[in-house]
Amino acid sequence: MRIVDLIRSKRDGHELTREELQYIVRGYTDAQFPDYQMAAWLMAVLLRGMSGQEIATLTEAMLHSGVTLDWSDLPGKKVDKHSTGGVGDKTSLILAPIVAAGGLLVPMISGRGLGHTGGTLDKLEAIPGFNVNLAPDQMREVLGKCGMVLVGQTEKIVPADKKMYALRDVTGTVESPALICASIMSKKIAEGIDALVLDVKTGSGAFMKKEADAVHLAKLMVETGVRIGKRMVALITDMDQPLGLYVGNALEVIESIEVLKGGGPADLRDLSIELAAWMFYLGEKTSSIDEGRKLASQTIANGSAFEKFCEVTRLQGGNVDALRDPQKLPNARNRREIRSQTTGYVETINCEQVGVASLVLGGGRDEKEDNIDPAVGIVLHKKVGDRVAANEPICTLHYNSDARLGEAEALIRSSYAIGAQSAAPRKLIRQVIEGSSKPAAQAS
Amino acid sequence: MRIVDLIRSKRDGHELTREELQYIVRGYTDAQFPDYQMAAWLMAVLLRGMSGQEIATLTEAMLHSGVTLDWSDLPGKKVDKHSTGGVGDKTSLILAPIVAAGGLLVPMISGRGLGHTGGTLDKLEAIPGFNVNLAPDQMREVLGKCGMVLVGQTEKIVPADKKMYALRDVTGTVESPALICASIMSKKIAEGIDALVLDVKTGSGAFMKKEADAVHLAKLMVETGVRIGKRMVALITDMDQPLGLYVGNALEVIESIEVLKGGGPADLRDLSIELAAWMFYLGEKTSSIDEGRKLASQTIANGSAFEKFCEVTRLQGGNVDALRDPQKLPNARNRREIRSQTTGYVETINCEQVGVASLVLGGGRDEKEDNIDPAVGIVLHKKVGDRVAANEPICTLHYNSDARLGEAEALIRSSYAIGAQSAAPRKLIRQVIEGSSKPAAQAS
Repeated sequence: MRIVDLIRSKRDGHELTREELQYIVRGYTDAQFPDYQMAAWLMAVLLRGMSGQEIATLTEAMLHSGVTLDWSDLPGKKVDKHSTGGVGDKTSLILAPIVAAGGLLVPMISGRGLGHTGGTLDKLEAIPGFNVNLAPDQMREVLGKCGMVLVGQTEKIVPADKKMYALRDVTGTVESPALICASIMSKKIAEGIDALVLDVKTGSGAFMKKEADAVHLAKLMVETGVRIGKRMVALITDMDQPLGLYVGNALEVIESIEVLKGGGPADLRDLSIELAAWMFYLGEKTSSIDEGRKLASQTIANGSAFEKFCEVTRLQGGNVDALRDPQKLPNARNRREIRSQTTGYVETINCEQVGVASLVLGGGRDEKEDNIDPAVGIVLHKKVGDRVAANEPICTLHYNSDARLGEAEALIRSSYAIGAQSAAPRKLIRQVIEGSSKPAAQAS
Repeated sequence: MRIVDLIRSKRDGHELTREELQYIVRGYTDAQFPDYQMAAWLMAVLLRGMSGQEIATLTEAMLHSGVTLDWSDLPGKKVDKHSTGGVGDKTSLILAPIVAAGGLLVPMISGRGLGHTGGTLDKLEAIPGFNVNLAPDQMREVLGKCGMVLVGQTEKIVPADKKMYALRDVTGTVESPALICASIMSKKIAEGIDALVLDVKTGSGAFMKKEADAVHLAKLMVETGVRIGKRMVALITDMDQPLGLYVGNALEVIESIEVLKGGGPADLRDLSIELAAWMFYLGEKTSSIDEGRKLASQTIANGSAFEKFCEVTRLQGGNVDALRDPQKLPNARNRREIRSQTTGYVETINCEQVGVASLVLGGGRDEKEDNIDPAVGIVLHKKVGDRVAANEPICTLHYNSDARLGEAEALIRSSYAIGAQSAAPRKLIRQVIEGSSKPAAQAS
């Protein structure tokens, strides 16, 4: 087998075989052929696409480029959720405790903030002492003890993706749905899960602004997971404005605690319960989604979800006192209220700009190496559809340095469109894409 | 300007500007960005294509990556011919002397054999002493003295093409018509010519087996030349069987001499005169193609074309005695006749296989570094449409080593289809694609 023939084959729109895709992934990971041949192949994939079978095979080849986790000795189904990323999206911090409290295992591997979006690891690290860097043995211990664990990616899991993503980033080949799907799914399946709930965001704060693109990617990911023998669902959810009211790392921990204690804003609570309900259902804890919703609500109402969050925090070295008394979480020294200049209704919020404003205040990274400030962020007082009077606060900026305060303020101001229309906000859960359940025995 | 943005732009099917294409060619030639980014861009070009304006701009950018030749101090129009390559195609050796004898200047830069096709440089080097490696000053001297010069590519002309072609070869991006066009045209225009005649081959011995592909490339090249201010024509010619009867380096020199002396096979003579006629016409030596044909025939009839070939050979260090007495050219020690097993008509000849048979005998290269044997080759006794009796010779192999004789014989046998049909061979000149003449002042 020669890589140049496989480049030509994909260039001409042919379907590659399992052996061919394994050759490409293994050969590239082991540096048996150079970056420039992989770059040509990746561009051919982007422009020619891949069949469902090819994507599943590529995903499996990437999965097996490194170690995979195996919790089969721990009783119970292992489930996880993956979000394509948004602004104010802190559902992982809420639903993992809910689902673990409900009796399933959640071995969750999360990422850092990327571009204008926040990252679960950055949020967890706003809790003093919380350690997201656990070795597999430590992961097993925490997961075994409390039914959940919240960690970051290690170098040993799917090394092919790390190398491929670095090349895609500089060769204009990030945007391929097939490659995005294989990248996400290989890492999630390496977690050793039985079922996966996908939260695919669409709208002005999502990577996929168009709903049709989000649906396309969601279908690819669901099909890929099913082909590999996993139970799958994708919820296409709204990211045309921030989720909840708090954007910023410590602020999002606070809002998560509010939801876990039975409060918090309705959109965040509803989505967390919906995603948790699907996890219960796919993890065979409940026999319907509706029972899943009830179980999720119970874990909040009886306090077990919040206690689970405290337990995992303690097991991962975090300061539980800061969860019980959120004033002990990092707190920005300064506040700046942004007030409306007119009277009317919030017609739209440019969600990506709100994410960038939080980044500008220090809550995210411009460069990979930048440190982030856990305390800073934005509290929204008005969301789409809300009435607002002239001079009424629409947001409060939490900041420590005023170096880029003006920039953040300008971003927030221009992100709010206030007009005469009192239209309702977009539906939160826009579509549900279910994977046909396929017995593992038939999986490829 | 960032290369990743230009990759994305071409990936998304946009037209690149002059500045962008210049940035890509210069940046890649000067190693300002790595091979993997160029590879992704080349694949995007192959799959998305380029507009006529983009191809012309790319050609000019490549042209200016190195030195260009300038013969403006030498009086008279400078013209050349380029063939896309075939089997038995020795027209360069015939028409360059004809056109120089007719009063135009022919600064011809040729290539080596590639794959199953022969190369003009390899044929010239079958003449003992003939030196194709001349510095620009030596080229000028020969061209000034006899109106023609026959040399190889130097490193200094279009270095961008050398680097790009090497990358295309290993990334599955050779086959892009836009890139093929820019590669050929940049090198030809660097010769400092006013007009160019293209001989674009189609059929079983050509790189473009399908006539539609040959026509597409021909149109791109003619349009590109016209945009850059050159007078252009492309003849789409048949390569479904070898041109003439002799295949092999010294053998093709012998057949060229036959034509220059008024003999030789009709197809080779006709095509040589037709191509020369177009060169006379585009070089403004004659006011019509038909006058061009007459002038070409005159240079043969009055012996001036053959004398011109002797003159250039002498000026380039070659042994003129070997032209006047071709028995002094390299001569293979052994002959093997291939005889027909049946009676009938030659219906088709797989022309590529005949080329490979000559290569197998030592007349071409398997690897870039291989030495070639100038003496070996194939003499065809039967061509398409000819009647052949059982046991009658169809070909004679000229060989020095019998190491791969059986392989060559098998290739020749399987290349001839002998049946009951006495169909005429395909038309030699299949289409003529003329460039709308465009004054140089309007050229981009």
